[in-house]
Amino acid sequence: MEEDIGSGDITTENLVPLNLTGKGRIVAKQPLVLAGLDMARKVFEELDPQILFTSAFLDGQEIETGQVVLEVSGNLRALLMGERTALNILQRLSGIATQTRSFVNLLKDKPVKLVDTRKTAPGWRVLEKYAVRVGGAFNHRMGLYDGVLIKDNHIAVCGGVRKAIENIRQKIHHLIKIEVEVSDFDELQEALDAKADVIMLDNMNIEQIRAAVAIINNRAIVEVSGGVTRDNLLLLADTGVDIISSGALTHSAVSVDLSMRIESN
Amino acid sequence: MEEDIGSGDITTENLVPLNLTGKGRIVAKQPLVLAGLDMARKVFEELDPQILFTSAFLDGQEIETGQVVLEVSGNLRALLMGERTALNILQRLSGIATQTRSFVNLLKDKPVKLVDTRKTAPGWRVLEKYAVRVGGAFNHRMGLYDGVLIKDNHIAVCGGVRKAIENIRQKIHHLIKIEVEVSDFDELQEALDAKADVIMLDNMNIEQIRAAVAIINNRAIVEVSGGVTRDNLLLLADTGVDIISSGALTHSAVSVDLSMRIESN
Amino acid sequence: MEEDIGSGDITTENLVPLNLTGKGRIVAKQPLVLAGLDMARKVFEELDPQILFTSAFLDGQEIETGQVVLEVSGNLRALLMGERTALNILQRLSGIATQTRSFVNLLKDKPVKLVDTRKTAPGWRVLEKYAVRVGGAFNHRMGLYDGVLIKDNHIAVCGGVRKAIENIRQKIHHLIKIEVEVSDFDELQEALDAKADVIMLDNMNIEQIRAAVAIINNRAIVEVSGGVTRDNLLLLADTGVDIISSGALTHSAVSVDLSMRIESN
Amino acid sequence: MEEDIGSGDITTENLVPLNLTGKGRIVAKQPLVLAGLDMARKVFEELDPQILFTSAFLDGQEIETGQVVLEVSGNLRALLMGERTALNILQRLSGIATQTRSFVNLLKDKPVKLVDTRKTAPGWRVLEKYAVRVGGAFNHRMGLYDGVLIKDNHIAVCGGVRKAIENIRQKIHHLIKIEVEVSDFDELQEALDAKADVIMLDNMNIEQIRAAVAIINNRAIVEVSGGVTRDNLLLLADTGVDIISSGALTHSAVSVDLSMRIESN
Amino acid sequence: MEEDIGSGDITTENLVPLNLTGKGRIVAKQPLVLAGLDMARKVFEELDPQILFTSAFLDGQEIETGQVVLEVSGNLRALLMGERTALNILQRLSGIATQTRSFVNLLKDKPVKLVDTRKTAPGWRVLEKYAVRVGGAFNHRMGLYDGVLIKDNHIAVCGGVRKAIENIRQKIHHLIKIEVEVSDFDELQEALDAKADVIMLDNMNIEQIRAAVAIINNRAIVEVSGGVTRDNLLLLADTGVDIISSGALTHSAVSVDLSMRIESN
Amino acid sequence: MEEDIGSGDITTENLVPLNLTGKGRIVAKQPLVLAGLDMARKVFEELDPQILFTSAFLDGQEIETGQVVLEVSGNLRALLMGERTALNILQRLSGIATQTRSFVNLLKDKPVKLVDTRKTAPGWRVLEKYAVRVGGAFNHRMGLYDGVLIKDNHIAVCGGVRKAIENIRQKIHHLIKIEVEVSDFDELQEALDAKADVIMLDNMNIEQIRAAVAIINNRAIVEVSGGVTRDNLLLLADTGVDIISSGALTHSAVSVDLSMRIESN
Repeated sequence: MEEDIGSGDITTENLVPLNLTGKGRIVAKQPLVLAGLDMARKVFEELDPQILFTSAFLDGQEIETGQVVLEVSGNLRALLMGERTALNILQRLSGIATQTRSFVNLLKDKPVKLVDTRKTAPGWRVLEKYAVRVGGAFNHRMGLYDGVLIKDNHIAVCGGVRKAIENIRQKIHHLIKIEVEVSDFDELQEALDAKADVIMLDNMNIEQIRAAVAIINNRAIVEVSGGVTRDNLLLLADTGVDIISSGALTHSAVSVDLSMRIESN
Repeated sequence: MEEDIGSGDITTENLVPLNLTGKGRIVAKQPLVLAGLDMARKVFEELDPQILFTSAFLDGQEIETGQVVLEVSGNLRALLMGERTALNILQRLSGIATQTRSFVNLLKDKPVKLVDTRKTAPGWRVLEKYAVRVGGAFNHRMGLYDGVLIKDNHIAVCGGVRKAIENIRQKIHHLIKIEVEVSDFDELQEALDAKADVIMLDNMNIEQIRAAVAIINNRAIVEVSGGVTRDNLLLLADTGVDIISSGALTHSAVSVDLSMRIESN
Repeated sequence: MEEDIGSGDITTENLVPLNLTGKGRIVAKQPLVLAGLDMARKVFEELDPQILFTSAFLDGQEIETGQVVLEVSGNLRALLMGERTALNILQRLSGIATQTRSFVNLLKDKPVKLVDTRKTAPGWRVLEKYAVRVGGAFNHRMGLYDGVLIKDNHIAVCGGVRKAIENIRQKIHHLIKIEVEVSDFDELQEALDAKADVIMLDNMNIEQIRAAVAIINNRAIVEVSGGVTRDNLLLLADTGVDIISSGALTHSAVSVDLSMRIESN
Repeated sequence: MEEDIGSGDITTENLVPLNLTGKGRIVAKQPLVLAGLDMARKVFEELDPQILFTSAFLDGQEIETGQVVLEVSGNLRALLMGERTALNILQRLSGIATQTRSFVNLLKDKPVKLVDTRKTAPGWRVLEKYAVRVGGAFNHRMGLYDGVLIKDNHIAVCGGVRKAIENIRQKIHHLIKIEVEVSDFDELQEALDAKADVIMLDNMNIEQIRAAVAIINNRAIVEVSGGVTRDNLLLLADTGVDIISSGALTHSAVSVDLSMRIESN
Repeated sequence: MEEDIGSGDITTENLVPLNLTGKGRIVAKQPLVLAGLDMARKVFEELDPQILFTSAFLDGQEIETGQVVLEVSGNLRALLMGERTALNILQRLSGIATQTRSFVNLLKDKPVKLVDTRKTAPGWRVLEKYAVRVGGAFNHRMGLYDGVLIKDNHIAVCGGVRKAIENIRQKIHHLIKIEVEVSDFDELQEALDAKADVIMLDNMNIEQIRAAVAIINNRAIVEVSGGVTRDNLLLLADTGVDIISSGALTHSAVSVDLSMRIESN
Repeated sequence: MEEDIGSGDITTENLVPLNLTGKGRIVAKQPLVLAGLDMARKVFEELDPQILFTSAFLDGQEIETGQVVLEVSGNLRALLMGERTALNILQRLSGIATQTRSFVNLLKDKPVKLVDTRKTAPGWRVLEKYAVRVGGAFNHRMGLYDGVLIKDNHIAVCGGVRKAIENIRQKIHHLIKIEVEVSDFDELQEALDAKADVIMLDNMNIEQIRAAVAIINNRAIVEVSGGVTRDNLLLLADTGVDIISSGALTHSAVSVDLSMRIESN
C-alpha cells in the first residue's frame, strides 16, 4: 500500500473529514472463483483497525456476475485509500484461481495432478501459489529451498544423471525427494537406475511421453512440463503421467473484473 | 529473490562447485517489445557482483523470435540461481510493453494520449508504469500522492463538484492539477465553472463523450476511462478527447515467452 | 525513540518498579502555536499501549505561557522514558508552527500565499511540512517526485527555457504542473511563450519583480523565492506575486520552550 | 534521501540524460564552522558510487564567506538529486557547530566544560552530538542507556536521594557513574553522603550554585543545567562548577547559509 | 555487530587514529574443528572493505592448540571493533563442529546417519546447521517449511496415523517426504500401511527399536530421536536404524577457546 | 521465528484446522533457574494475540524436576508452531541463569561481584546478559558504547597507560568510568597515577593478584578476568579483588531440559 499512498492521499485527506464513516461493497462483474479475501481484509484493517469486514463467501467459491463479494464498514478515508490496493489484490488472485479452476475442470476424473511452477510475479510467490490451490490445482516446490530438481546444467556439471543423483542424495536431508529432468531415454534409464523419486520428461512429444510412462512403470513419479495449454491438457493427461506442471496457471492469468461502491454514512 | 532462494538453492549449492563459471543467453520465443533489462542485470549482479551482462538491445526495441535478448557470464551458481527471477521480471515487463505498443500502434497519428491507471500488481507500481512508458504510452499519476482526482465519494462528502474543487484548491500545493470525475452534464458544467484542470468523463457513451468534448471546448483537458478495449479504442480516440486511460495496459497483460540457456565454461 | 533508549533506560529500569503508574503534564513556558499532539501521543502509546492521553487543545491553537498543553497517565516507566522524545518532537514542530504563524500574521489580508521549501531536516520532511500548514502557511511540492521545477541546470542541459518546458510536457503525467525558474526577462518571455504553469523569479529585486508581474499579467502563477525575511515580507507581498516561498519557515525555526512534570500515583 | 526523491525526481530524470556528468561546488554565504563533510559525501556516493568528492577543509575548521566548502564531480543527475539533501545536512550540522563554537569561545580559559543534552531532533542524536564536538564542546550521555541520571521522579519513587543512589549502585555495571539532580541543600547533602559521582544543581540561582560548589568541595563533579544563555554563561562559569550543560547548543541552533552551483561538463 | 558497537566504540574511536593499520592473528587454544571462517571474514570486511583476510585452513579441518587459525590486516580500528564479534562467531560454530566431529568419529563405519534437530539458538539456525555439516554430520529439515513431520498432536487432531498421512499426502507438493512419529507398534503398523516415507521411533528402548526395525524391514527410513548421548550412541547405531537425530549437537555444544592478538603497524 | 516457519509450517497448516484451540504445558525435566518467561510469552502472542499465558513462577525462581513452568491456551496452530522457538529460548536463557546461579552460590558471603563479559552469542547480547542478572550475577558493560576499557592495543597506540587514560578522559562524557587492563606492576603504577577508575589485572597469578590488590589499596576498583573456572573461583575471590568477570557464564552455558505437552480442546 505504501507505493500507492506514499506521502499521503492528497485528494481524500484534503476533502474527507477524519471522522466520517462509510460502507463499501465489492461486486463481481464477471463469473469468478474468489481468492484473496483475507489479504483484502488486511488492507482495510491496516488503514482502520476497527473496520468491519464481512463476506458471504469463502476463498474457492464460485461467484456469479452481480453478486456482492464482500462488504466493509468503517472510516471513510480508510475505505477510499484502501479501495484500489484491495481490488488489485483480489482481481489478480481471483484471476489466477478462476483460470486454474477452468483447467482443473477439464481434468475432472483424470488421475493426474495439475501443479504450478516458479513462474510467479516476483514478490507474489506465496500468494499466487495460494490462489492456485484455491483454484483446485496443486503446488510444485515453493522455491529453490524446499525440493531438489536436477536440470541439464546440474547434470552436465556432475558428469551424468546417475552421478548427480547419487551425489545429492549424500547431502540433502531425508525429507526431500529428488526430481531429475531427463531429455532422452538414456537419461531416463540412468534416472531409474539411480532411483530418482520423480522424473520430469522434458520436451518430449505425446508418443515419447507414453513410452516413457511405460518404461518407468510406477518406479518413480512422472511429471511433464512445458508448453501446456488448454488444448493439449487432456492429451497429456491421457498419457498416464502423474503430474502436469504449467507456468501458465500463474504467468498467463488475467485479472478478473470487480468494482467497489463506497457510500458515506 | 529472497522468496525464491530462501535458506538456499539446495540443488545447485549441493551439485555445482562454488568456483565454476558459465555463460547464459536469454532468447525470445515470440516477437516482443523489450522491457526490464536493467532489473534483470541487477538480479545477477546481486548474486555475483563480477557478472558480465551484455545486450545488443535497449528497452523499448522490438525483438524477433529467436533473437538473443541478452548474455550473462560469471559464476555458474549465480546464473542458475538468478535465472528464474530474471526471467519472471523480463517476461512480465516485456509483456506489458508489448501489449502497450500494440495499443499505441492502433492510435498512430491520432492526437490523443494513451495512459495507464493505478491497476498494477501491488509491489510492482513503479516497474509496471515504466514498462508502459517503454511501450510508448504515458503514465497517469503514480499514486494517491502526486495528483488530485476527485471521485463521486469525494463529491458527495463535499456537497457537489464545485465545492469539492474550490475546497481542495485551498489546500494542495501549486504544482498539482485538479482532475474531477463527472457522470452527467450538470456535473460537467460545475466542473467547468470551478475551473477544473482535467475532467474525466465517467461511463459515458460515445455520443455523450462527443457532446461533452464540444461543451468543454478546450477549457479543460478531457479524459475518458473505463471499458477501454482494442475494439473501441479508435472510436474513443475520434471523439476528440485528450486522454484515454486503460487499466488493461497493466492488469490484463500476459507475460511474453523467453527462455534461458546456460552452459558451464 | 530507539536512539534515546537503545539497550535500555538504565536509571528508570533499575529504580522504578515495572507496575507503578503516574501522570504527566506538559506545560507551555512561552506563548506558542501547538503542533505535534498526535506524534507525542504515539511516543507514549508505543511505550505503553494503555496510556491515557488528553489535551484541551488541537494542533494550530495558540497557547499562553503556563497553560497545560496535554496530560498523560499510565505506566510510570513509559512516562519517564518517553518524556524527552515527546518533548523534542513537540518543541520542534511547535517551533515551526509558531514562527510560521508570525509570518502569516504579517501577511494578513494580502492576496499572496506563503509556502515552505524542501529545506527541511532530513527525515523530518512530512512532519515539518505538516507544522507549516498548522502554522497557517502552505506547502510547496513535497519532494522531487510530485512537482516539476525546472532550474538553471535543467535549462542549460536542454538548451533553453522553451525547450526544457516543451520537452518535459511530453513526459510527465497530466496532473503535474510545470514550474520554471527564470533569472532575466528573456527567460521570462520564453517561459510565457512555452506556457509554463508557474514562473519562479530568481534573485530579482523588488523593482524587477514588479515589472515581471506586470509582464506575466496572470498568464502564469508567479512565485518569488530566496532571501525572504520578516523585513522584506510585506514588500514582496505588495509586488503582486502569487506565492512567496521561504526556507526559513523550517530551517530557521527555533524550538519552543515546554516542560513536563511527572508524578507517580 | 528517500523522502525527497520518492518515486523519482521527475524534473531531472525527464530532462537530464543518464550519462551526462558535471561538477558542483558548495560555497559558504556566511562565516561558519564546518560540520558534516562525511555525511554530505555519502549522500552523493549513494547516488553515484563513482563520484569524486574533495574539500580543502576538515570538519571543525572555520570558513569565511565566499570560500568553496567542497567540490563534487560525477553523474549530473546524482549532483542535481543529491544537492538539497546534502545542503540540508551540512547547513544544519554546521549551524550547530558554529553556534557551539561561539559559546565555547566565550568560555576560553575557564576551567569548565560546556556539554550538550538529549534535546536533539529525533533521528539526529548521533549527528547533532557529533556537531557539538566539532564545535569544541563536549557531549553529555548519548542516551538513556549509557549514563545514570537520577531525577526528581526517581528520587520520589525510591524515597529519597540516598536510597536512590544506593539502590542503583547495586545494579548498574561498574563503568557507569551515577549523577543525581538535587534541588536543595538537604538533597545535596544526601547526595554527598551517598557518594554520588556527579551532582546536578537544578534551578539554583548564582548565589546558591556558588554555595553548593563550596559545600561539595571536589567530592563530586558539579553540573549546572537549565536556562543557560549567551548572557549568563560567564556568570555560571565563574561559580566554579565543572560542567555547564545546555540544550540550546542543539535545539536552538539555526542552519547556516550555503549554496551549491552545479555545471554540466 | 550492531548490538556490540551501538553508537560507537568509545574507547577505540577516542584513542586510535582513523588511519592507523594493523594486523591480527587468531590462535587456537585447544584442539578444534574449524567452522565459521567466512562469517568471521564478513565481520571484518563490513568494518573495513579493504581488509586482507587469509587462512591456511578451510572449514572442517582439524586444528591443533597453538596453530594460527587466520590472519587479518587492515584498518586498526576495524580490527579492534570486530575482534569480539568475530571470535564469538568462530568460537560458537567451531564448538558445534568440534563436538559433532567427536560424535561422528564414534560412529565411523556404521551404516547410520547422525543428524541435527531444530533445537538451535533462535537467529542461528542456518549457521548452526552449517557447523553440523562441517563437523561431518547431516541436517534434518531446516524448519517447519521444508519437510513434513507428523507428531502426536497432529495424529490426535486427524484421528489416527493413517488418516493424518493420507490427508497430508493430498496437500503437500510431490518433492516432500512424509515422516511420522510413532509411539507404539499399532501406530507403527498404521504408518507402514499408509506408506509413510520415514518413521520416527519415539521413546522406545533399545529392545523395542530393534523389533521395530525388523518389522519395518526397509519399507521406510527409520529414525530414532530423543535422549541421544555419547554413551548410548553406538547402542542405538547397532539397532539397525537409518538415522539418529540429536539436539545435543547444537544445544549442548560449548564454545571452543580462541584468542586474538592485534598489533598496530 | 521467521527462520523456523519460513513460508509456512506445512505439517500443521495442512493437518490442523484454523479454528481449533488447545492447551500447552512446559515442564522442567531437571532442576533449573527460570529465565525467559516474558520472551516465551511473546513468541506465542505473536502467533495468536489472544493466547492465554500463565505461570506460577517468576524469572529467577528455582524450579524442580517435574514442575510445570508455564501454561498456554489458545489457537492450536499457534501452540504447535511456537513450541520449538519458545523452548529454544527458555532452554538457553534458563541454562545461563542456572549455571550463573551455581557460580553465585559458590561465592555466597564473599565481598566480590561476579560479572559477565561480551562473549555472548551474536544477536543474543541483551537477552543473555539479562539471564546472567536473573542468575544472580552482574553485568559488565553492555557493549563497546557504554564503558571505556583500555586494552594493550590502545595502550601501545597511545604510548603508555598514563597517556591513554589522560587522552580519553578529555573525550568521553562525564558519566563513563575508565577501566584499564594492566599486565605488570609498572603499568599498574601508571594506572594508579593517572587515576583510572577501574583496573583489570590481566593474566596474573593468585600471588600477583594479591600483591596488586595491596598496592591499589582501594584507590581503584579491581577486576580480574580470564581463565575463571568453578575450581579457582573461591581462590580468586579470596585475593580481595572487587570484581571477577567470566565469559564462561554465557559462552559455556548448556541449555536446560524442558519439554512441552500440547493437547487440543
